[in-house]
Amino acid sequence: MDIERFDVGPRLCEMVKHNHTLYLAGQVPEDTTLDAKGQTAQVLDYIDTLLARAGSDKTRILSAQIFLSDLADYDGMNAAWDAWVPVGHPPARATVQAKLANPAWKVEIVVVAAV
Amino acid sequence: MDIERFDVGPRLCEMVKHNHTLYLAGQVPEDTTLDAKGQTAQVLDYIDTLLARAGSDKTRILSAQIFLSDLADYDGMNAAWDAWVPVGHPPARATVQAKLANPAWKVEIVVVAAV
Amino acid sequence: MDIERFDVGPRLCEMVKHNHTLYLAGQVPEDTTLDAKGQTAQVLDYIDTLLARAGSDKTRILSAQIFLSDLADYDGMNAAWDAWVPVGHPPARATVQAKLANPAWKVEIVVVAAV
Repeated sequence: MDIERFDVGPRLCEMVKHNHTLYLAGQVPEDTTLDAKGQTAQVLDYIDTLLARAGSDKTRILSAQIFLSDLADYDGMNAAWDAWVPVGHPPARATVQAKLANPAWKVEIVVVAAV
Repeated sequence: MDIERFDVGPRLCEMVKHNHTLYLAGQVPEDTTLDAKGQTAQVLDYIDTLLARAGSDKTRILSAQIFLSDLADYDGMNAAWDAWVPVGHPPARATVQAKLANPAWKVEIVVVAAV
Repeated sequence: MDIERFDVGPRLCEMVKHNHTLYLAGQVPEDTTLDAKGQTAQVLDYIDTLLARAGSDKTRILSAQIFLSDLADYDGMNAAWDAWVPVGHPPARATVQAKLANPAWKVEIVVVAAV
């Protein structure tokens, strides 16, 4: 069964397609001056863009693992999430606190989606 | 390929079925007065109930990601886990420490299962 | 659809095959006297060995979740990773900090692969 990789770099790729399933790399914000809501909105926008490139979209997300560098940002993250998640099609989700590779990142989201 | 969602809320759903695979949301204890063993037993009971609703069961779990708010609870979690996990059919598992969204939760478990 | 488990123990197994997909348990170093680069190289070697037993290999990894006990080891981990990851076939990856079950472990890696 074929494997298709997107945005292949030397260390990782941003998305892999295999067997009707998309595996996304942990998506992180580019503009680290934003607050938690703004960073989350940016991350979700990247996810939308990646999914679209593979012919999927946010109504077809299966699971989301959310890492917050500080759980004090839980409400801010959810403000962006709740505005974005499609009614009737929310994924299975888990949210935990974990220090992220760049200390300026407040959120990192790992998604698996159907395609 | 069809996607079926269970317990759909505004923010997340508790389980998603796609391509012979079930993706569960992070399951957490309801009774936070319980100790680590008790909370884990409750979480595993929720997992059993969810899997049953999709026609699966604990002998068909593929992977389990366990988040403990305090690794001091590792033995307590395992006491409940070892009593529950079916002989000959244990999943691939990983356990790490991470602060959870509710400080009273001692454990959160994310499961992927076959169906 | 069949489920095949590898290295089945009482608590977990090291790898599960289902529907053209392999789910590996969190792989950890055996020689904890090694530095982060050495521990990571050992973990990646275990992953190679497990994948080979199921007829897969590192060019077919879909996603990798890396847990570092200390993000100060990010560069050391990547030194081993970059030397190992196959050109043109890197997986989707996410790296966060999390305390691991054995305080001597510097790294734990969870992999999903195609087969």
